[in-house]
Amino acid sequence: MSKFWSETVKRCVPYVPGEQLNDANIVKLNTNENPYPPSPKVVEAIKVEAERKLNLYPSPTVDQLRTDIAEYYGLSKDNIFVGNGSDEVLAFSFLAFFEAGKPIRFPAVSYSFYPVYCKLFNISYEEVKLNRDFTLPVEAFFQTDGGVIFPNPNAPTSIYLEIDAIKEIVENNPDQVVIIDEAYIDFASESAVSLINTYNNLLVIQTMSKSRSLAGLRIGFALGNSDLIEGLTRIKDSFNSYTLDRLAIAGAEAAIKDTNYYKSTTREIIHTREWITAEMKKRGFHILPSQANFIFVSHYNKQAEELYAALKDRNVLIRHFNKPGIDNYLRVTIGTNKNMELFLNKLDEILA
Amino acid sequence: MSKFWSETVKRCVPYVPGEQLNDANIVKLNTNENPYPPSPKVVEAIKVEAERKLNLYPSPTVDQLRTDIAEYYGLSKDNIFVGNGSDEVLAFSFLAFFEAGKPIRFPAVSYSFYPVYCKLFNISYEEVKLNRDFTLPVEAFFQTDGGVIFPNPNAPTSIYLEIDAIKEIVENNPDQVVIIDEAYIDFASESAVSLINTYNNLLVIQTMSKSRSLAGLRIGFALGNSDLIEGLTRIKDSFNSYTLDRLAIAGAEAAIKDTNYYKSTTREIIHTREWITAEMKKRGFHILPSQANFIFVSHYNKQAEELYAALKDRNVLIRHFNKPGIDNYLRVTIGTNKNMELFLNKLDEILA
Repeated sequence: MSKFWSETVKRCVPYVPGEQLNDANIVKLNTNENPYPPSPKVVEAIKVEAERKLNLYPSPTVDQLRTDIAEYYGLSKDNIFVGNGSDEVLAFSFLAFFEAGKPIRFPAVSYSFYPVYCKLFNISYEEVKLNRDFTLPVEAFFQTDGGVIFPNPNAPTSIYLEIDAIKEIVENNPDQVVIIDEAYIDFASESAVSLINTYNNLLVIQTMSKSRSLAGLRIGFALGNSDLIEGLTRIKDSFNSYTLDRLAIAGAEAAIKDTNYYKSTTREIIHTREWITAEMKKRGFHILPSQANFIFVSHYNKQAEELYAALKDRNVLIRHFNKPGIDNYLRVTIGTNKNMELFLNKLDEILA
Repeated sequence: MSKFWSETVKRCVPYVPGEQLNDANIVKLNTNENPYPPSPKVVEAIKVEAERKLNLYPSPTVDQLRTDIAEYYGLSKDNIFVGNGSDEVLAFSFLAFFEAGKPIRFPAVSYSFYPVYCKLFNISYEEVKLNRDFTLPVEAFFQTDGGVIFPNPNAPTSIYLEIDAIKEIVENNPDQVVIIDEAYIDFASESAVSLINTYNNLLVIQTMSKSRSLAGLRIGFALGNSDLIEGLTRIKDSFNSYTLDRLAIAGAEAAIKDTNYYKSTTREIIHTREWITAEMKKRGFHILPSQANFIFVSHYNKQAEELYAALKDRNVLIRHFNKPGIDNYLRVTIGTNKNMELFLNKLDEILA
């Protein structure tokens, strides 16, 4: 600990992302990336933009991309905020809508970045225990002091919460902001975006990292009432005028327009998910009902940590969270059929 | 003001960047961008990277780029932090090293983002009046409670402070961090980077937006003792695991290696700066001695605001700060010779 560090540095507890190994031999099923490349139109748009005006600042207001996203969802540009990955959008949202002394609530099993933001920005929080089947106890999120945030589908459980339940949570927090973190929503049934025009306290956050195959481009966005978007914009403009570079903007504009491409890769992943789920059940795995691009599994007699290590030894990387309540579970990203066949073969070796 | 906004949103006073007009007819001399395109090697590296793995997350630790920058400066990777533009690096630095109750000091005429960060993060500050010739009153930065930050060369004055004076400031703040914001250093005589191995409380921040012609790519970096870099990394890892996208990393790696290219465009800009300075002096302008890629000027009998407006009417955009003490000055970015000839012609029309 350095004498030069602020109280903020001393207080914060950095997030640890899944291992990012640069080894081409590894089958990487640990960070919920999309196994398919982005739309060829995205790559083309980036290559064109690279030749244009990299010496000039990008748009600080990112109007065109915001307009494109708004059109996709039948909203207005003033309902859209864009950022450098949904992690940045989340960070800005915590600063904009949550604060010390008014505890927010999120599930105890959830995206482990939430408590990290709370510690960084000194925001009070309460962790709500999930039901025994890992579903969300809806009423426990009513009447909060400071607001609510959870992923839907939840991570790492992969379980989706129905829109009617979200409506109830939003209605029972009329003076607080409810944030639905929809990183995986395109692999699920229905987004809460449809509620935005009805509820001024609902913020939906999405990303292009998962369904649009653009984890490497860092594009996240928030959708909500224009007052909420203005709050986010004030924070962003007090932090960094230009959070998206010209290439990311160009790529994201192309991505949001090529709906057919991402719908087709998404269908493929859902198909693979259903197949691998069936195969793993045959092998003695308990698998939570997934509406995401990953599954959350435990085996009836093999320890999760042991399976994780044995797979890693065989160059297959999945994610194990060493956290009470889920430490006998493993999170497995859905790769291509070929990736998953290899994964199954290695599992069979280990379980044999 | 929305009832959903946190105290942070209510408190913050967003930065207003120079106008970013998307009109190809405008000669843009208002945001200190480099008029030359980036190195062709940067463009090529981006185009290659666009075809690679955009579906996968970038490196969270950005080791290769940090190693490349370290090599350029004869430092170690642990001395280098990279971020999404130097504005983000500055924001993280304010969070990491400054805090409430311990006032930091910066010049009253300086980068106007500093007070914005202070308000966002609730950091106390004192603004130090410049000398009458716009130079920095060095001793006024000694023995601060919370630390020091200033640009060198200063912005928008363009005036460079000698390394010996920086040394004195650093030595006279042994328990505080002194941040030298070197956005424009490549147009000046000498960087303070050479002092990093001697002083553990010195942080130097640079950017690829200016001398490397990459404002559109958003690459900033900090150089300092490994303890300071660790502090910044803890903040970044509590905020966003991946702040640089794959394309920005690839472009920045190519940029830091192509020294010849940027040295040649930098020489060109310095040459143009000296020429335009001489021409404007002939026309009755007072011009501060510039070591940046811009000049800070006032006219002996024409009001700055009036000149700004008359030039804007003629499609030439420069920057006017409506701030006491400098409201009769104009900041003019150094463009190509052709840009500056056009600018001079328009000036001659106005002054005629």
